[in-house]
Amino acid sequence: MTLTAREIAEIAGGTALGDAEVAVSSAAAADAAGPGDVIFIEDPKALPAALSSSADIVIAGAFAAGASRESGALIVCEQPKLAFARILRRLYQAARPAPGVHPSAIIDPTAVLGCDVSIAPHAIVDADVRLGDRVVVGPGVHINAGVAIGDDTDIKSNVTIYSGTSLGARVVVHAGSVLGSDGFGYVRDATTGRYESFPQVGRLVVEDDVEIGAACTIDRGALAETRIGRGTKLDNQVHLAHNVSVGEDVVISAQTGVAGSSVIESRAIVAGQVGIADHVRIESGAILGAQCGVPSGKVIRGPGVLFWGTPARPIKQYLKELAILARMAKK
Amino acid sequence: MTLTAREIAEIAGGTALGDAEVAVSSAAAADAAGPGDVIFIEDPKALPAALSSSADIVIAGAFAAGASRESGALIVCEQPKLAFARILRRLYQAARPAPGVHPSAIIDPTAVLGCDVSIAPHAIVDADVRLGDRVVVGPGVHINAGVAIGDDTDIKSNVTIYSGTSLGARVVVHAGSVLGSDGFGYVRDATTGRYESFPQVGRLVVEDDVEIGAACTIDRGALAETRIGRGTKLDNQVHLAHNVSVGEDVVISAQTGVAGSSVIESRAIVAGQVGIADHVRIESGAILGAQCGVPSGKVIRGPGVLFWGTPARPIKQYLKELAILARMAKK
Amino acid sequence: MTLTAREIAEIAGGTALGDAEVAVSSAAAADAAGPGDVIFIEDPKALPAALSSSADIVIAGAFAAGASRESGALIVCEQPKLAFARILRRLYQAARPAPGVHPSAIIDPTAVLGCDVSIAPHAIVDADVRLGDRVVVGPGVHINAGVAIGDDTDIKSNVTIYSGTSLGARVVVHAGSVLGSDGFGYVRDATTGRYESFPQVGRLVVEDDVEIGAACTIDRGALAETRIGRGTKLDNQVHLAHNVSVGEDVVISAQTGVAGSSVIESRAIVAGQVGIADHVRIESGAILGAQCGVPSGKVIRGPGVLFWGTPARPIKQYLKELAILARMAKK
Repeated sequence: MTLTAREIAEIAGGTALGDAEVAVSSAAAADAAGPGDVIFIEDPKALPAALSSSADIVIAGAFAAGASRESGALIVCEQPKLAFARILRRLYQAARPAPGVHPSAIIDPTAVLGCDVSIAPHAIVDADVRLGDRVVVGPGVHINAGVAIGDDTDIKSNVTIYSGTSLGARVVVHAGSVLGSDGFGYVRDATTGRYESFPQVGRLVVEDDVEIGAACTIDRGALAETRIGRGTKLDNQVHLAHNVSVGEDVVISAQTGVAGSSVIESRAIVAGQVGIADHVRIESGAILGAQCGVPSGKVIRGPGVLFWGTPARPIKQYLKELAILARMAKK
Repeated sequence: MTLTAREIAEIAGGTALGDAEVAVSSAAAADAAGPGDVIFIEDPKALPAALSSSADIVIAGAFAAGASRESGALIVCEQPKLAFARILRRLYQAARPAPGVHPSAIIDPTAVLGCDVSIAPHAIVDADVRLGDRVVVGPGVHINAGVAIGDDTDIKSNVTIYSGTSLGARVVVHAGSVLGSDGFGYVRDATTGRYESFPQVGRLVVEDDVEIGAACTIDRGALAETRIGRGTKLDNQVHLAHNVSVGEDVVISAQTGVAGSSVIESRAIVAGQVGIADHVRIESGAILGAQCGVPSGKVIRGPGVLFWGTPARPIKQYLKELAILARMAKK
Repeated sequence: MTLTAREIAEIAGGTALGDAEVAVSSAAAADAAGPGDVIFIEDPKALPAALSSSADIVIAGAFAAGASRESGALIVCEQPKLAFARILRRLYQAARPAPGVHPSAIIDPTAVLGCDVSIAPHAIVDADVRLGDRVVVGPGVHINAGVAIGDDTDIKSNVTIYSGTSLGARVVVHAGSVLGSDGFGYVRDATTGRYESFPQVGRLVVEDDVEIGAACTIDRGALAETRIGRGTKLDNQVHLAHNVSVGEDVVISAQTGVAGSSVIESRAIVAGQVGIADHVRIESGAILGAQCGVPSGKVIRGPGVLFWGTPARPIKQYLKELAILARMAKK
């Protein structure tokens, strides 16, 4: 696959300066580019080096208007990183697995498969599962009875999806994740002191365009549902407990855990290794710094304020506290 | 499956007031109930709303004695949540997989299978494995040579169990967990500076009625054993290192990690994302708050005191320290 | 397998005192030994008990020179734990799976297999994969197209390896781990507020003698590479993001996470549940205490200073701060 500067300018919604017919077949980081590469920069300070690099095409923001290159092309557009991402998608189109069901896959006869689904070796699709068009089910994946999966959703290897789960369209689930598992619900019998399980009979609903990293665990609701809103992205090893509700376009980084019945509203940003206890509300657009902890029942105000520490507090306050402590320790 | 108020009262060990013959087929949260539902409440404040709800059956604690409903039934018992859990188990009996060995499963001829075991597609059972009666082995599960598994134990999809592991009866292991893996033991060669593995040749013993969440990792002992006591419950993504010993009826929430040779005594309660270093002792009934950290070699006193922070200290002290800091930062 | 004191002395590079022909077939912890066992001690205080124990062979450090036993043998050497590890490896040689490809494995005809590889049931090896000699591929493992794996590497059950990954020789990957998954890269479209994926097209390179625990997730580079250096050891549930670079002989304990583009130089030691943000540099030989957090862009100086807390600071300072706080809270 190759793209000319003219084609890239069109994808980027920008203008091509220089040689509009120069073509690239690969992309690189700005500091590691060679001939045949396209690069992008977002920082005006990086412009001189980018212009004189051997990359054939440089994508830059509006700050580059008026600049020129000795050879190759310069593309000026509003959102250079977004443009670059879209060009990457063209240059590196992952080979979609061919449609078809591998003979070693075990498909229940009551499962309903859309057009052009691809089911890999050793996948297992149980009774009454419904797969949309062009769904990809990876090797070793197990989809339990009654699960519904929307069009173009891509389930990577060795994922397990429990009954009671539905996934929307264009969802991506990376390898080893577990969706719809039983929540951690027990009742202690006061007379014996022993725990009995509180059966988890709710649902897990994953909306369109959600992406779930590798080795995540998302529990179904206890009685009601766990829900992940449209466009939300989870990194690897994220844990969401029963009855958690995550809004749209939320970002949650690796190894973060969210306890039962907590709500993360749309467009919140949650860093890595954050702990959110039960019955918490993270308001729309709130930002939680890495490793911070939100105690049970708290509300974190959004949008735009960064919280840090355990218990999580506005970063200004947290840094002030740290500075006071450090000063006292120096005496 | 339906249950009448009379039947539910019997299961609950309580008394049915109102229409003892009204029947339900589903359960709901108290604030989301409709006709045909059973609900439960533990909080006296929730009683008026529950009594007037459209739920056909309300289960409540002793505080509800003397109350009445216009229609439907009210069941008064000692432990309403426990009763509700038991009723859920009746109403939503998960369809147990049919006994039998799927033809795509690979069972070593020396493995010994109990009565009515169910072995799913693509499961693998190695030499000298012993499975008790009614054991369920999920799809893609791999049980290594010599593992012993007790009656009625249920291993969900894509679990891996290493050699040297034994599981008791009625154990549940959720999808993607890894049991009996090699502990993290290395010796640095002082002459080369390189690490050599310290072979991990001990055992993992999981006693009866233990439940293990999804994507947990439990290492075998180095020379001796790792042990999880009867009735203990682990949430998702819990990590237990080699030679850890967990007592009976312990609860450990998600993403908690326990380093080598630490001991968690019976009935301790460990919240999520807790870190317990090596050679720690958590005394019986101790409570560790979310994200707290217990340094190497420490003893946490039980029962009943909540510890928080890193290093973990009694919560009163921790909160006092936080308050002092916050006050100083406000000046 | 049995070893005599004479043979063990030779492996240990030490001298055997007492009965050089006494033989052992098993190893034990020093406080749990019986006849037929070999034990080791590193602490001079443990010497008297070890000498009089019923273990047939005691391995001890130079401090034991001049001691003697009534029966059995005493082996004095420079590195008793290292010697013991090597003896364990002899006594407990894990039965290597027999070479061969199980008929239920699905091997693409373009894959190139070395001599004496062992491919377990239900493993899947895609196009253009290259496996070195004596590679072991466990049950349910999926190796995507183009992956290269060096000699004697051992991939345990249910591991997934994405395209773009290469593993060196003698690498061990424990069950359930995911290697080479897509990094967590998104670009927010300023006009719609939605996230688009930044395609992850880089590589993951795992060098010789690396060991990776169970349920780890290691992402491929975004454009360039993620790299784990020779001899480095990762515990269970470790997460490494895209473009992370880990040097040689680094040790990373369980549940630690490293964000994008951070560098951990050779011989650093990272404890459990540590969080390393993006673009951090951990210098060679630095030591990070459990649960500490290193903020974005920071440099942690090595070698030899232990850092603790979030944000990570030298432990002396951290402990002083804790002591001041505790004193104030006591007033």
